[in-house]
Amino acid sequence: MDRNEALAIVQSKLKQSRYEHTIRVMETAIELAKKYNVHVKKAELAAIFHDYAKYRPKEEMRRWIESTYLPKDLLQYHHELWHGPVGALLVEREVGIEDREILEAIHFHTTGRIHMTTLDKVVYLADYIEPGRKFPGVELVRESAWEDLDRACWMAARNTISFLMSKNQPIFPDTFHAYNDLTKKVRAN
Amino acid sequence: MDRNEALAIVQSKLKQSRYEHTIRVMETAIELAKKYNVHVKKAELAAIFHDYAKYRPKEEMRRWIESTYLPKDLLQYHHELWHGPVGALLVEREVGIEDREILEAIHFHTTGRIHMTTLDKVVYLADYIEPGRKFPGVELVRESAWEDLDRACWMAARNTISFLMSKNQPIFPDTFHAYNDLTKKVRAN
Repeated sequence: MDRNEALAIVQSKLKQSRYEHTIRVMETAIELAKKYNVHVKKAELAAIFHDYAKYRPKEEMRRWIESTYLPKDLLQYHHELWHGPVGALLVEREVGIEDREILEAIHFHTTGRIHMTTLDKVVYLADYIEPGRKFPGVELVRESAWEDLDRACWMAARNTISFLMSKNQPIFPDTFHAYNDLTKKVRAN
Repeated sequence: MDRNEALAIVQSKLKQSRYEHTIRVMETAIELAKKYNVHVKKAELAAIFHDYAKYRPKEEMRRWIESTYLPKDLLQYHHELWHGPVGALLVEREVGIEDREILEAIHFHTTGRIHMTTLDKVVYLADYIEPGRKFPGVELVRESAWEDLDRACWMAARNTISFLMSKNQPIFPDTFHAYNDLTKKVRAN
């Protein structure tokens, strides 16, 4: 699928501001993919479709989680975490993308996971550092992104856990596993 | 086993400063036990023995973990986490205490766990807030301890995770599960 076709599909699913975010994630993911020797076309497609399910009604997402292979423990956590897994499911069913690497990068783009692939990391990080992001600490992650992919993802995971704890929120297990796994990698370097 | 007999046993196993810490944990645990309707004698014994294995050589602790029912994933984490599980094991084998509630409170006094018992919480918190503790944030936990046991334990777990992340350390899964579980309890109140 070429870029314009993919963009036309997601544009119909997103608000304009979210579509513009998607463009910036795509551009950032392509640059990171080139830097870290990731298949550029896969990074481009995963980035374009990463928020595909962002505006599905919460009850529709709940039904997809309840009625498919998606992990049921998602329902115990904030619905903000649902659009990644549901997005991967719907990009396969509705758009016809079957590449597992792309679908998994979409699935885990919000939470991370243990043993993230390089493509997972590129999409996770592009979503975190795209130039429209302004939250505290993002500049340090942005600088690291061009030097050490694991370290930058580790910083993003750590910031995410700190943010969630400051809001008295639980932490989805995949985020915790991503943090621990990346901590080992960062400490080994 | 009476208090003096128990204290004499641990005194032989600890440095003087650690023994004095143990006395303060015992006194704090007894007060918390009275406040939260926990069996006072169990709290007293669990507190007295909580650091029983603190000064066992690292290699001895490693052998106990490798050769018994203790979870092997402990070996992937900082050896500071080993003395609780190894202590519970040795308090049973060497001292002869067989009460599962006491042994589990000793086992989990550093990490916490999902579904902590009230005795677990009393010992975990007493160790965290005893009057000799001076680390950042302890005063707020100390205040909460006499108002809301779950909230105080949740604050302690959150502080512990923040501290570990600030030191680029991995987080033992039980600590993360304790945080998430206590977050649900605190948010429900």
